[in-house]
Amino acid sequence: MGTTITNTPKRAEPKAVAAVVEKLAARFGNRLVTSQAVREQHAHTTTWLQSQPPDAVVFAQETADVQDVVRVCAAHGVPVIAFGTGTSLEGQVNAPAGGVCVDFRDMNKVLEVHAEDLDCVIQPGVTRKALNEHLRDQGVFFPIDPGADASLGGMASTRASGTNAVRYGTMRENVLALKVVRGDGEIINTGTRAKKSSAGYDLTHLFIGAEGTLGIITELTIRLRGIPETIAAAACSFDSVRGACQATIMAIQTGIPVARIELLNAEQVKACNSYSKLSLPETPLLLLEFHGSEADVAEQSKNFAEIAGECGGGGFTWTTRPEDRTKLWQARHDAYWAVKALRPGAGVVATDVCVPISRLADCVTETEDDLKRLRLQSPIVGHVGDGNFHCSLLCDVDDAAEMARGEEFMHRLVERAQSMQGTCTGEHGIGQGKQKYLKGELGAEAIDAMRAIKQALDPKNIFNPGKIVPAPSE
Amino acid sequence: MGTTITNTPKRAEPKAVAAVVEKLAARFGNRLVTSQAVREQHAHTTTWLQSQPPDAVVFAQETADVQDVVRVCAAHGVPVIAFGTGTSLEGQVNAPAGGVCVDFRDMNKVLEVHAEDLDCVIQPGVTRKALNEHLRDQGVFFPIDPGADASLGGMASTRASGTNAVRYGTMRENVLALKVVRGDGEIINTGTRAKKSSAGYDLTHLFIGAEGTLGIITELTIRLRGIPETIAAAACSFDSVRGACQATIMAIQTGIPVARIELLNAEQVKACNSYSKLSLPETPLLLLEFHGSEADVAEQSKNFAEIAGECGGGGFTWTTRPEDRTKLWQARHDAYWAVKALRPGAGVVATDVCVPISRLADCVTETEDDLKRLRLQSPIVGHVGDGNFHCSLLCDVDDAAEMARGEEFMHRLVERAQSMQGTCTGEHGIGQGKQKYLKGELGAEAIDAMRAIKQALDPKNIFNPGKIVPAPSE
Repeated sequence: MGTTITNTPKRAEPKAVAAVVEKLAARFGNRLVTSQAVREQHAHTTTWLQSQPPDAVVFAQETADVQDVVRVCAAHGVPVIAFGTGTSLEGQVNAPAGGVCVDFRDMNKVLEVHAEDLDCVIQPGVTRKALNEHLRDQGVFFPIDPGADASLGGMASTRASGTNAVRYGTMRENVLALKVVRGDGEIINTGTRAKKSSAGYDLTHLFIGAEGTLGIITELTIRLRGIPETIAAAACSFDSVRGACQATIMAIQTGIPVARIELLNAEQVKACNSYSKLSLPETPLLLLEFHGSEADVAEQSKNFAEIAGECGGGGFTWTTRPEDRTKLWQARHDAYWAVKALRPGAGVVATDVCVPISRLADCVTETEDDLKRLRLQSPIVGHVGDGNFHCSLLCDVDDAAEMARGEEFMHRLVERAQSMQGTCTGEHGIGQGKQKYLKGELGAEAIDAMRAIKQALDPKNIFNPGKIVPAPSE
Repeated sequence: MGTTITNTPKRAEPKAVAAVVEKLAARFGNRLVTSQAVREQHAHTTTWLQSQPPDAVVFAQETADVQDVVRVCAAHGVPVIAFGTGTSLEGQVNAPAGGVCVDFRDMNKVLEVHAEDLDCVIQPGVTRKALNEHLRDQGVFFPIDPGADASLGGMASTRASGTNAVRYGTMRENVLALKVVRGDGEIINTGTRAKKSSAGYDLTHLFIGAEGTLGIITELTIRLRGIPETIAAAACSFDSVRGACQATIMAIQTGIPVARIELLNAEQVKACNSYSKLSLPETPLLLLEFHGSEADVAEQSKNFAEIAGECGGGGFTWTTRPEDRTKLWQARHDAYWAVKALRPGAGVVATDVCVPISRLADCVTETEDDLKRLRLQSPIVGHVGDGNFHCSLLCDVDDAAEMARGEEFMHRLVERAQSMQGTCTGEHGIGQGKQKYLKGELGAEAIDAMRAIKQALDPKNIFNPGKIVPAPSE
């Protein structure tokens, strides 16, 4: 049972795959694994998309390993798929044409930290939490937080963002340079440690969000920030989604540098109350975080409280006590589990869209109406400062009728966002699941350009085939 | 007399050019101009690079005009060069292979302003000052300020930035979407009005900084900011460039959200004193601007003053009075004229490099030493928060020996920045002048990738040939 995958590239010849596996086994010994269990672990299982395991998995330890895998695969026309932690949501790590998965679990070193320059150089398998653990003593942190403890290579490849993006930007704004293995195994350096540059085409941004389809990232230079002196958390309930959105717009317009501003719709608050043993009013809720000096944070909180009051917000509370902050944000971080607990045994599919913030209230409200009409259950959480929100749709995957309504819902959600000058995905990426929406969003000419770039940089189509760029028929 | 241009693409056949001019004259009437004076105005005259005028200039009024120019030129293999205000600094608007220049002077409309969403849609000929004039009543502004009153299309094409980048980012962070005319005259839409997106390859960023070599931008959707409640200007003199740089690093590390932080070296201060009738101490100077609420700005100023004190800064003064602010910043904006007045009749060439901020003091100091050794005069101003600085080199263009020393100086400046993990240009772009440095900075593989992309998106090489991508021999 699964969402239709329409772009199924041709599988490599079994003889070619066998030759590649033999050569890689000789090179990597027991770091090449072909057991079914490991192959299945590396295919995509967190969505409705069908799992498509690779033929083999190599655990890389250094860039030279990746170069060798790419060279062997290229010689035989066998696909190469990069794998971080497997938390992507649109089938990015599936292997529809088979091939070799390169697992970056062991390429997890922080190579250099330049605290004065607010940057560091890392291997792609470093995870977000491990990185911040490593950095803490030096008074700096990496702000992008997509929820999952994803690898930085994967986060760059899907152009991830999350709760902090409203203040600190997404992966797009926080990667300075990449080292990328190209189709013949040689290495492209896309930039330097300079904070800005006008030197030639922006290769860095071309590989960010390319989901491993143009080459394989083996090193990242990323921006860091100073750990704020004070962090305050706040919560504020609203009569309506519209009031919460209006408060967000006003806060951003007046320049309150809010670090996080998350919307939970009434149904999500209900789920969190039940799961996290809270007693929040079961109406739309904004969860906020302010960063800065003590005086800063106090002023930001005061200013936001005034705005919230004008927009029908009530019961605004804020705190700088770490234990209170943690409690509040833990509920947000557990939102997925809270949804899952609403209907044990059902599948949960997370999908995301992003619209101009002035249309967010319309988009969320119409989406809630659609859920009622289709008799579906999907709490909503939103990175409301960016106009980005997620639906966590609960469906019984064995109930064909409900699944069909679920697909209709998701289809209509994307079309609604696009009709409001928004995008079919703010942060999850295209992968396999959203290829059919690219043309409607950007037009055939943009797809042509993407195809031409793919052909130019990966003429043998060995890098993660079947992702992002739709099949020629679409 | 001029800096060597090494990449000279083959000129279009005179017959082809004649055919294009005839067709465009029929289509555009007196909006097609071939007079020598107008052609020369559209070639590059603000640098040491030799001027290379186009064969004709078309004054476009709408996207359809650009589409028609491109179609006619493509049919005959004749180059098309986009022209904003002609303030680029590395030969970006030169026409080394001849061709048709498209002047965007008359495509200067603000098409939509979405104050709630903090974005607007504009034509490429809108200039920075005209845009902010237009926006003022709505409480929003566009923060990128490269000094010159450049057009937004040109600013996007060279990935411009300037004095506000330390807080608000560069053009890279402030363009949401572009409309681009491709080689067959069709239009590529690169994005939507959503603040963030993971939908496919990042075409927007590929065209930003492409200097018109991959297509021609005919519409931009850009990000705006709320006009800050209070703006304060400050100045602080330092014993040494190192002290000024150290204060900057500490300010950024501790998260003071300074909006502008500009370094003037002692020689630049001297030039400004003389030109702008000021009496600043003739030692390294930081000029700052703080944006925020009144309380915010006061706190930022106080915190910075403390840091400056620790780093050998003295005489820190700050003010929110508009007339005092203007006086201070006027001196900075007139820095170029102040340099010119130091030696009337000499040529001034502005060049820029950018290094990790921890290396900035070394880079500036070594550059000052080099100037002494080479008996050259070049005041230095720096967007010090980004590690980016400019030399305004004064040379008698008729003195071959001095010019040779000037070229040596600029060459060594770039190599110095690159050896410190920096870039040959932070914001001026590659154009013609800096192609020879790209390979040293990024390696042959990055150049290969740029060539492959150019070939994929502009197979006929009609878009601004001879720019960015070095000739195959380099």
